[in-house]
Amino acid sequence: MNGSRVVGQVRIVGAGLLGASIGLALRSKGVDTIVHDASPGALSLAIDYGAGRASADTDNPALIVVAVPPDQTAAVVAQELAAYPDAIVTDVASVKALPLAELRALGADTSRYVGSHPLAGRERGGAISARADLFVGRPWVIATGNGETTAMVGVIEDLVLDLDAVPVLMTAEEHDRSVALVSHVPQVVATLLAKQLTGGSERALSLTGQGLRDTTRIAASDPQLWIQILAANSATVVDILRAFRADLDGVIATLEEPGAPGAKRAIAETLAAGNAGVARLPGKHGQDRRFSQLVVMVDDKPGELARLLAEIGDAGINLEDLRLEHSPGTLVGLAEISVLPEVEPKLVAELETRGWRVAEAWR
Amino acid sequence: MNGSRVVGQVRIVGAGLLGASIGLALRSKGVDTIVHDASPGALSLAIDYGAGRASADTDNPALIVVAVPPDQTAAVVAQELAAYPDAIVTDVASVKALPLAELRALGADTSRYVGSHPLAGRERGGAISARADLFVGRPWVIATGNGETTAMVGVIEDLVLDLDAVPVLMTAEEHDRSVALVSHVPQVVATLLAKQLTGGSERALSLTGQGLRDTTRIAASDPQLWIQILAANSATVVDILRAFRADLDGVIATLEEPGAPGAKRAIAETLAAGNAGVARLPGKHGQDRRFSQLVVMVDDKPGELARLLAEIGDAGINLEDLRLEHSPGTLVGLAEISVLPEVEPKLVAELETRGWRVAEAWR
Repeated sequence: MNGSRVVGQVRIVGAGLLGASIGLALRSKGVDTIVHDASPGALSLAIDYGAGRASADTDNPALIVVAVPPDQTAAVVAQELAAYPDAIVTDVASVKALPLAELRALGADTSRYVGSHPLAGRERGGAISARADLFVGRPWVIATGNGETTAMVGVIEDLVLDLDAVPVLMTAEEHDRSVALVSHVPQVVATLLAKQLTGGSERALSLTGQGLRDTTRIAASDPQLWIQILAANSATVVDILRAFRADLDGVIATLEEPGAPGAKRAIAETLAAGNAGVARLPGKHGQDRRFSQLVVMVDDKPGELARLLAEIGDAGINLEDLRLEHSPGTLVGLAEISVLPEVEPKLVAELETRGWRVAEAWR
Repeated sequence: MNGSRVVGQVRIVGAGLLGASIGLALRSKGVDTIVHDASPGALSLAIDYGAGRASADTDNPALIVVAVPPDQTAAVVAQELAAYPDAIVTDVASVKALPLAELRALGADTSRYVGSHPLAGRERGGAISARADLFVGRPWVIATGNGETTAMVGVIEDLVLDLDAVPVLMTAEEHDRSVALVSHVPQVVATLLAKQLTGGSERALSLTGQGLRDTTRIAASDPQLWIQILAANSATVVDILRAFRADLDGVIATLEEPGAPGAKRAIAETLAAGNAGVARLPGKHGQDRRFSQLVVMVDDKPGELARLLAEIGDAGINLEDLRLEHSPGTLVGLAEISVLPEVEPKLVAELETRGWRVAEAWR
């Protein structure tokens, strides 16, 4: 049992994927975790699953986490603020400005409310899909700008750190703009692309590859949840969709006359802008611009990769990312290694001294 | 060494990803494989890598596979048809109607030409990215409708089956319509979505999750290749992009007035259509189904990953693939390991005995 940063009881309201995952993780840290859900069936499932204990009259939670659908968030937060006048209350809804405005409209005591949003999830919902490690390494936005005290933010930060997530402080408005770009607009685009497939022939769809699967994967998301998210963040989402549409209009006009002067250049510039956009994504394998990549050829025999990594360790160099490409037909494997740019020259020199074949990083 | 269906020498022209991968696979079947490339550097890399031997004056190939960029395909096919008057020639370009029209315009002997297209690839090109198993289980279209004989189609089918791919017979027109839907339009959409990220703040992008990564992954593809593909199949691509734009216009109009009567229902119907589209995709989403994945937590310090791999080797277990995820702000990395399903339980037991923290396979 590991120690927790969170002090006192934590009450979780809403025993779906997020609520139950939070409960599982907190219990593994030894926190007295109470779980509650308006549905007795969902509640008993979450308790059976290990997400927490049922509430009792003697409960005195220090922190309440509301993990209900976005359109119920403000009402439930208001109810919890009123029922537990000593508790700090947070929520995990995917939008942050609207719940706060709704709370104020409800006349709730928002001085004890700090909104938050873990950037984590799965396509499958419900306590049955919950996992204690759902939040590991993921950003978790804590919404600021509501006059909250440092101590209150600290309470939420402790929760986030107990779940091995990474706290990110943002105003509700910055949060909503940010998730419109990295989550809500991608959802709309993936949905519209997947919608085009409804008219395709079986034979056409039989040619589907991983590219289309990846591009449309999130189109399988829950419509009920996404109606709420898109409606709650519509203005910001529309702004970005309009920019997308303007670019789409440009591509359509160009492809209508692909032989026209400048057409190929226009397509090339759009494709290059797409390259540049995807290269900005953090932590993306092979494209993380924080790191330098290099490729080492490794003989396809047991122990060679371990020897390579041992020698990199001996040289005092820390790998940031590593991927082994192993193809049965080739005579060598390729270890693609990411390191901090400043250590790359040293690593190349150390490896070549030791007889490794280093290919130039591609892309 | 396995037996091949292909009889006689195979000459591969173009030693990039596809050409070198075909060469690796054919050589593993014992086929006398000749590889050629206009670039001496690319050719010698492919030969070093095991993709085939250099050409000789005594060559007498039964089959020639042209694996050059789409805009060079017709010219190279015409050249090969003229140089080897007994050979059947195919190509692997991603469009099929245009190269055939160009060949006819060049006055080539198209009676020995059967176009084809393997639905396989990677974001990275070049022989260095080649893999003998690139085509395993993937569809490989053989273009019909050019007056080809059954025997000629049979030669290409033998090649496809030797590479463990799945032959699909289609006319050039049906092929081009199909790939517009499942490949070319998804490329444009992913590119335009990724382009929107170029204007995002660092802080917004720090919230990126797997959904955006997947949705934009193919936006990292090679612009030079895609200019050619999109230009060569522009009319069909534009048809689908127009339908996409009409749907996008509808979503924008709805989100401009999310409180209007029927707005939520309209969003719900679009999201449901996206669900329906993605449900039509054949096969399962996600990871390589040949292998089981598990995730091991690795302390972020030099030598830890080497120790993990050494201990896996000590346990007599062969890694099929390995990936290290290093999340910002965390003290541990996650090593995602792929193994044959039958050894997974043993590996988990061995790792846990040695004190490693093993997470359940995700996704």
